[in-house]
Amino acid sequence: MPQASLDRHSPFPAEAPTRADAKAMDARDPLAKARDLFQLPHGVIYLDGNSLGALPRHAANRVFETMRAQWGEDLIAGWTKHGWMDLPARVGRKIGELVGAPEGTLLACDTTTINLYKLLAAALAERPGRRTVVSERGNFPTDLYVADGLFRTLGKGHRLKLVDRAEDVVPAIDADTAAVMLTQVDYRTGALHDMAAVTKAAHAKGALTIWDLAHSAGALPVDLAGADADYAVGCGYKYLNGGPGAPAFLYVAHRLQASFMPALQGWLGHAKPFDFDGSYRPADGIQRTIVSSPPILSLVALESGVDTLLRWNMADIRAKSEALTEIFRILIDGVADRLGVVRASPREVARRGSQVCYRHPDGYAIVQALIERRIVGDFRAPDIMRFGFAPLYLRHVDVWDAAANLVDVIETRAYDEPRYRVRAKVT
Amino acid sequence: MPQASLDRHSPFPAEAPTRADAKAMDARDPLAKARDLFQLPHGVIYLDGNSLGALPRHAANRVFETMRAQWGEDLIAGWTKHGWMDLPARVGRKIGELVGAPEGTLLACDTTTINLYKLLAAALAERPGRRTVVSERGNFPTDLYVADGLFRTLGKGHRLKLVDRAEDVVPAIDADTAAVMLTQVDYRTGALHDMAAVTKAAHAKGALTIWDLAHSAGALPVDLAGADADYAVGCGYKYLNGGPGAPAFLYVAHRLQASFMPALQGWLGHAKPFDFDGSYRPADGIQRTIVSSPPILSLVALESGVDTLLRWNMADIRAKSEALTEIFRILIDGVADRLGVVRASPREVARRGSQVCYRHPDGYAIVQALIERRIVGDFRAPDIMRFGFAPLYLRHVDVWDAAANLVDVIETRAYDEPRYRVRAKVT
Repeated sequence: MPQASLDRHSPFPAEAPTRADAKAMDARDPLAKARDLFQLPHGVIYLDGNSLGALPRHAANRVFETMRAQWGEDLIAGWTKHGWMDLPARVGRKIGELVGAPEGTLLACDTTTINLYKLLAAALAERPGRRTVVSERGNFPTDLYVADGLFRTLGKGHRLKLVDRAEDVVPAIDADTAAVMLTQVDYRTGALHDMAAVTKAAHAKGALTIWDLAHSAGALPVDLAGADADYAVGCGYKYLNGGPGAPAFLYVAHRLQASFMPALQGWLGHAKPFDFDGSYRPADGIQRTIVSSPPILSLVALESGVDTLLRWNMADIRAKSEALTEIFRILIDGVADRLGVVRASPREVARRGSQVCYRHPDGYAIVQALIERRIVGDFRAPDIMRFGFAPLYLRHVDVWDAAANLVDVIETRAYDEPRYRVRAKVT
Repeated sequence: MPQASLDRHSPFPAEAPTRADAKAMDARDPLAKARDLFQLPHGVIYLDGNSLGALPRHAANRVFETMRAQWGEDLIAGWTKHGWMDLPARVGRKIGELVGAPEGTLLACDTTTINLYKLLAAALAERPGRRTVVSERGNFPTDLYVADGLFRTLGKGHRLKLVDRAEDVVPAIDADTAAVMLTQVDYRTGALHDMAAVTKAAHAKGALTIWDLAHSAGALPVDLAGADADYAVGCGYKYLNGGPGAPAFLYVAHRLQASFMPALQGWLGHAKPFDFDGSYRPADGIQRTIVSSPPILSLVALESGVDTLLRWNMADIRAKSEALTEIFRILIDGVADRLGVVRASPREVARRGSQVCYRHPDGYAIVQALIERRIVGDFRAPDIMRFGFAPLYLRHVDVWDAAANLVDVIETRAYDEPRYRVRAKVT
């Protein structure tokens, strides 16, 4: 089913931005050319780059060449000849530029959840007398699960202290708090924590901070060092465009590296891995957080995504992200009562990441109906329609068209079809 | 430098196999055509497939297509449309055919070390009163490191009980043994444990077994179910030819799955990941061992390697492996005293994996000199020259030529050059 052409009969109030306004913004968009660096399916408006980012055009060739010219021709020598062994640090350095992590504090490796486990175990070891980890009940489930699994494995009485609202986080931090573990941008609502303020409050009580940058890295400027953050993890397959199941990253502040004894001790984190010493002696610095041989093909794909981002600057990316989310919010807010939708994201642009979400009792079906029109958002239980705006490959006019189709799908009850109610597994 | 042509002037005793014998074996080799399925660098004799397997010819195209046609065109829908979510189970099922793991007991995921951590934590939880894990001092270091890291993190007094010789393993198992953790094929010597016998002895004492199949999977028939093994892990980038840093695999016997509570609790191991429930409830069966979104590009490469293996059968693969290692052993054993080398691998073919190793005080330099002749083996500290024989892409004549060049390099002291003594990082 095609998208409805709604520019002649705008469903929005007269004072709302018009499709022509959106096209004018595209015409003066400093990131307009970035879109050409991605392979995008024809006719699709993709508002799910916060689940799986789009394919950078050069990524497939780079991985292909790595396989044919490096692995195929040089075999084991590839580890030194092509710098494979240094890929976690090299890609980590590049991601570090996006999130304010100085050289030697960030590596690309493993998965977000596994990295979180490493850091949480380290944080508890750094604060041995303390028993609680403060987080939000609405945090991404894996963050809570991994803490729960670690606590059960340790069997020392650690527990999660979960709060319901962002503003309850700081008051919950006390002398028993080992760490504050938060996702900077809420995966459902897009609400953005003040990293510097929360970190400062945690430090004031002697607690450490662990930031999950899953929905931040590549979407907005992050300043880990400036915020004095202790630990952080992040995802490679969302705004970093690293591909499905791409490697994640982890950050450990310089001051915490010397005392970091890994729970997951692997041979490549050893000071001298090729001595094959029977006793573990951690490598200097961040390298000790590495467990195993790095996944070269995945890291090359991730590096392609990060390189694409680094051609632009985060201030421009954030400015466009704000413009995109703001167009969508203004348009839908203006008709929200008429549609029966309730905004789940903060109104103020400074308080949200690169997504805008609305609640509707039929949210799941509405999202499916939009997908059939090739407008791809996603749904998060129980009733949230989530729309992510990746600034590098989305146009302002795409956002206008998506908003207009959302209105049309709801007002014409196009979503009210049995086939839209069958739930499939989606991420 | 070219390989020395040594067929006219064989350096071996008259009774040893000749180069013509080796060529005759190639002529009747049922696996001869398997070599054509790999991209191999011209003129290289690759005896390091036990570090990094060769590139299956179709792998690069399959990964390229996954990126361009699946990720690029279908984006987030790829998770369902292309079965990405099921890749760990699908590739796991195929690896299971190689190692005797029934459906639902093996998944391709994460890294060998991380999987070992998951299983070791589970084993300790299964045997709460017991404090020791029996292993070998000469086990691959990462296996010992990961145990040590887990024990330190737990802080409950667990310890490794390490033995020096394979025959000391069984006597070391007692009522305090939670698990016996062994690498089935020794990474240095190639010595092969009797999995069924050790497992039976462990069970007789109430202990569990964790088998590391890094140098077994794809190289020799393994029968996890037949041996009544409890847990196992293995590597994707050696004989499975999955590419540098390929995903690993793990196995949990059916009978141990219901009580398996993961230390590494991730959202994709949840019974209903897409409910985004705040509380962890493990998925049924082996799926609960999954932590994060599977690494699709790496898994497709690994699947290409496994598919290539599955075109042949493990009995033929083992028969050829035995023939290859036996030619090499007979040739070098026959001149060992002359060369000043000492065999580190078992003499009996049934007691070793697919490699043969010799010790020499100048082993490092000799291996480098061979590499310059494009005969690629590797070195393992302190003095082991390791030669691995991947049956799918090695010819019998390659083995003869490699042995002849090893003799020539030592006898002509071609290795005695300063440049061969500079140690580079190699895996």
